[in-house]
Amino acid sequence: MSTNPVETWQTKAELPRRMRDESLAQVQPPLTGIPEPLPLNCQGLPKLVLTPRELELTESYSVEQLLAQLHSRKLSSEELTRAFLRRAALAHVVTNCLTELLWDDAIARARYLDSLPEPIGPLHGLPISIKEHQGTLGKNKTSNASYVSYIGKHQGSTLLCDILWNAGCVHFARTTQPQAIMHLETESNIYGRTVNPYNRDLTPGGSSGGESALLGIRGSLFGVGGDIGGSIRVPAAHVGVYGFKPSAQRLPIAGGTGHMFGRECILATNAPITADRDSLELFMKTVVDAQPWRLEPSVRYQPWVPYKFTKPLKVAVQWWDGVVRPHPPVLRALREVADACKKVGMKVVDWDCGSLDHARGWEVLSGLFYPDGAKEVLGLIRDAGEPLLPLTKFITEEQAHVKERTVQEQWKLVTEREAYRTAYARHWSSTADEDGQEVDVILCPPAFGTAPPHGQSRYWGYAAIWNLLDYPGAVFPVTTVDPEKDVKDLSYEPRNAEDQFVHELYNAEQYAGLPVSLQVVGRRHMDEKVLAAVKEIELALGRI
Amino acid sequence: MSTNPVETWQTKAELPRRMRDESLAQVQPPLTGIPEPLPLNCQGLPKLVLTPRELELTESYSVEQLLAQLHSRKLSSEELTRAFLRRAALAHVVTNCLTELLWDDAIARARYLDSLPEPIGPLHGLPISIKEHQGTLGKNKTSNASYVSYIGKHQGSTLLCDILWNAGCVHFARTTQPQAIMHLETESNIYGRTVNPYNRDLTPGGSSGGESALLGIRGSLFGVGGDIGGSIRVPAAHVGVYGFKPSAQRLPIAGGTGHMFGRECILATNAPITADRDSLELFMKTVVDAQPWRLEPSVRYQPWVPYKFTKPLKVAVQWWDGVVRPHPPVLRALREVADACKKVGMKVVDWDCGSLDHARGWEVLSGLFYPDGAKEVLGLIRDAGEPLLPLTKFITEEQAHVKERTVQEQWKLVTEREAYRTAYARHWSSTADEDGQEVDVILCPPAFGTAPPHGQSRYWGYAAIWNLLDYPGAVFPVTTVDPEKDVKDLSYEPRNAEDQFVHELYNAEQYAGLPVSLQVVGRRHMDEKVLAAVKEIELALGRI
Repeated sequence: MSTNPVETWQTKAELPRRMRDESLAQVQPPLTGIPEPLPLNCQGLPKLVLTPRELELTESYSVEQLLAQLHSRKLSSEELTRAFLRRAALAHVVTNCLTELLWDDAIARARYLDSLPEPIGPLHGLPISIKEHQGTLGKNKTSNASYVSYIGKHQGSTLLCDILWNAGCVHFARTTQPQAIMHLETESNIYGRTVNPYNRDLTPGGSSGGESALLGIRGSLFGVGGDIGGSIRVPAAHVGVYGFKPSAQRLPIAGGTGHMFGRECILATNAPITADRDSLELFMKTVVDAQPWRLEPSVRYQPWVPYKFTKPLKVAVQWWDGVVRPHPPVLRALREVADACKKVGMKVVDWDCGSLDHARGWEVLSGLFYPDGAKEVLGLIRDAGEPLLPLTKFITEEQAHVKERTVQEQWKLVTEREAYRTAYARHWSSTADEDGQEVDVILCPPAFGTAPPHGQSRYWGYAAIWNLLDYPGAVFPVTTVDPEKDVKDLSYEPRNAEDQFVHELYNAEQYAGLPVSLQVVGRRHMDEKVLAAVKEIELALGRI
Repeated sequence: MSTNPVETWQTKAELPRRMRDESLAQVQPPLTGIPEPLPLNCQGLPKLVLTPRELELTESYSVEQLLAQLHSRKLSSEELTRAFLRRAALAHVVTNCLTELLWDDAIARARYLDSLPEPIGPLHGLPISIKEHQGTLGKNKTSNASYVSYIGKHQGSTLLCDILWNAGCVHFARTTQPQAIMHLETESNIYGRTVNPYNRDLTPGGSSGGESALLGIRGSLFGVGGDIGGSIRVPAAHVGVYGFKPSAQRLPIAGGTGHMFGRECILATNAPITADRDSLELFMKTVVDAQPWRLEPSVRYQPWVPYKFTKPLKVAVQWWDGVVRPHPPVLRALREVADACKKVGMKVVDWDCGSLDHARGWEVLSGLFYPDGAKEVLGLIRDAGEPLLPLTKFITEEQAHVKERTVQEQWKLVTEREAYRTAYARHWSSTADEDGQEVDVILCPPAFGTAPPHGQSRYWGYAAIWNLLDYPGAVFPVTTVDPEKDVKDLSYEPRNAEDQFVHELYNAEQYAGLPVSLQVVGRRHMDEKVLAAVKEIELALGRI
């Protein structure tokens, strides 16, 4: 580096890319058998590249089953970790999802765990992946959060990583995030664009899209991302895995690399993304059981108490948010799940967003994302000379309600947020008026459709409204796009410009075979109840 | 009013004062036998003015005992309410603690409750008092929060009042608060100065000082105030009653009249002040059991679960805060309680504030009180033309860290708050390192001394540090000042200007007989544990 007298953002970005490439070059044995050019859908590639045992270990077991084998020593952490290291490397080749593969460190950690007489915690021996800016204990002990400005500057691990580490995990892969960590896709000037393993022309979502691309091809089963406007739920949905945004301040966030520290008007949360449902609860329970509030007092004191339903659920279906009509596969998924819920005896009612004005909700939320008018974030980007990417521009400069506010103007917007939350809470409480049973959860889309083409994730409402409200939301896979069933409604007349944009984006053939996911949302702080409801709903769908 | 063509702040202030006076003129039979001039200590006056039955009802029973009589119909709510109405009127004559006596409304409410076949809730028939700006259902359906600007403008009740109402209480008195609701005393241009019933030359504390003056002479047994820097704990301490500041966002605050709505960097809480210990828990349980989060989503979802200790407490004694040395009676109270705790087998250790830098804590907190440099509050006062009172000036204009900040500068200060909270939490957690038992609670002063002379409440540290940390704190009476025991330490050399000021304020004779109270503080959100600890400590003191 020092041979180049002029440091540009491009030369600065070479360091983390080189570290990434060097980390991937360690893979042993090297990956062979990858076709060129890559197919659009890469789900068939692992069979061409990995050994049968690697395929077995990465495809045939749930996390719970793997942990049982690890804890009983039927399986060594080293063997499992090597399988996932190689599969993650393959995932990277096809999706560009990694910022670092922790080859040496992961194997050393796995061997250490294998050497112990007893499991050290509930995650003993399990390889887990972590979004780059949330830190981890790899060789590259820095995080850049995809800001060129930050390259080489931020060190150390996070409390969340430490807790997972103490629970026995193996940190084996770090994953990409977009510029400003605020796209519902994943593209940065440092690492480029991450793509969807089901269709490389489509996005894996974001901002935890490195995680979703990786989990979407089972290069990891258990990952850590974050969510402030949909960043765990949208990516999980776009690849058909599980994601959970708990209420804010349930999981620790100390130690992460980011921006706008001290902003309280809207809070980000760390969040799990997993290959199976039960792993969401395992993640939450493991972290909350570690009593993170004893070290990070912003975390609420609220022990994890699994929720048990004592009578059939009352599920409210939000068919649309009153702003943008969901694409046909999403509407079909809602119908199928609602029907299944009815069939097993649940009460299914409509959730009418009409009076709740989600459009106004977005105005308040987008303003609260950046009460400084995005000055800090845009400064970080411009100071480094790196280009402002279109989806960064979309969220910082193209939203009418993002503007620099005084403290007093911010108070006014926070007061509107509280009024909005209050109206929503009272509406929810009023659902008990008719039959004495309050709605347990809302069933709703996590996004307007399945994974869209790159650059088109320009409507956040379905995920982000729950960030404004601080309601927990879990995403689970329901079906896949079937062009015969999911026909475009050509007679539909869009209600507004956003609706028009989204309507025009749909084309059944383009999305054929893509995962279609839904979201279950509960009242504020009722994290356990949401996960219990997902289980009940999946049971209604005939799953275990 | 309309006959006066020029409206000044003085003429505006006539309306609420006239309403107060008219409300007090309703007392039947009128109060007679009040000596003139009033003595400094007014505790002997009820015996001169009230009937034996009124004395019995207002002095001889705990709240629990009264409720038992009310629920079993041995006592009518009307008789009880009339007794407290007359005693409250007397309290007002001697302390200037009321803004309105709800004579007609309270009696009508009591009669209604008496007419019902069954108690409607846990507080059925109990008269309770409420700080003026927190609203109530009286005839004067406005609150002014002691701002001349607000006179006649703010209507309606609060969610907290509604919950207490639905639990069966009788709202019977509204009480004073200071200008800007931000003195640790109680003086406003509208209502004048509220004084201490133990010594009219001394303050009853504030900002809930109307409540404490009233409860301090048993003109009420159960009141509602608030706390953002000591406003329930300091007044409770200064008259020897019980006060509890729960963690923020445990009790609802919607509907109150105030200022700086939307400020989140430091949060006020509503708070109970009661004549006995068990009433604190009754208040908390009653309100939390009403599930306030269903209507006000800023309230945390956290059911009230009474705490049970399973082994002897580990109590850390904070002898001083490293800034200002407490007065001798407070130090004696700490010694006496610590000794009693040891005697019953509790672990008693020191809480050393040295490394925790409470002085820096105050800088951060005072800055966060007014991130707009107190513009809004000072504007409200100046726009009305009313004088800025000395203690308002003290907290808004004389604090070096109160300044107008940009949103980004506020973030920086919030980040410092979090760093401070984190250091404190980790220090607390580290107390488990020695013997495996973490400190359960801190025993500490609620103020540097007992009630000081008017205008001298210029050091907030002992109460306010727990607002910065958002730790729950309960105040309970311990002893009274004994000039023979509580001798001034003439050899003490103050460490700084504040310490000097406080040291010079002490004079044993001036405070003779005044209540001396202490504070029990727990970790964030551990409200139930703090109340359980107060009980254990009182048991150690030989109380029931």
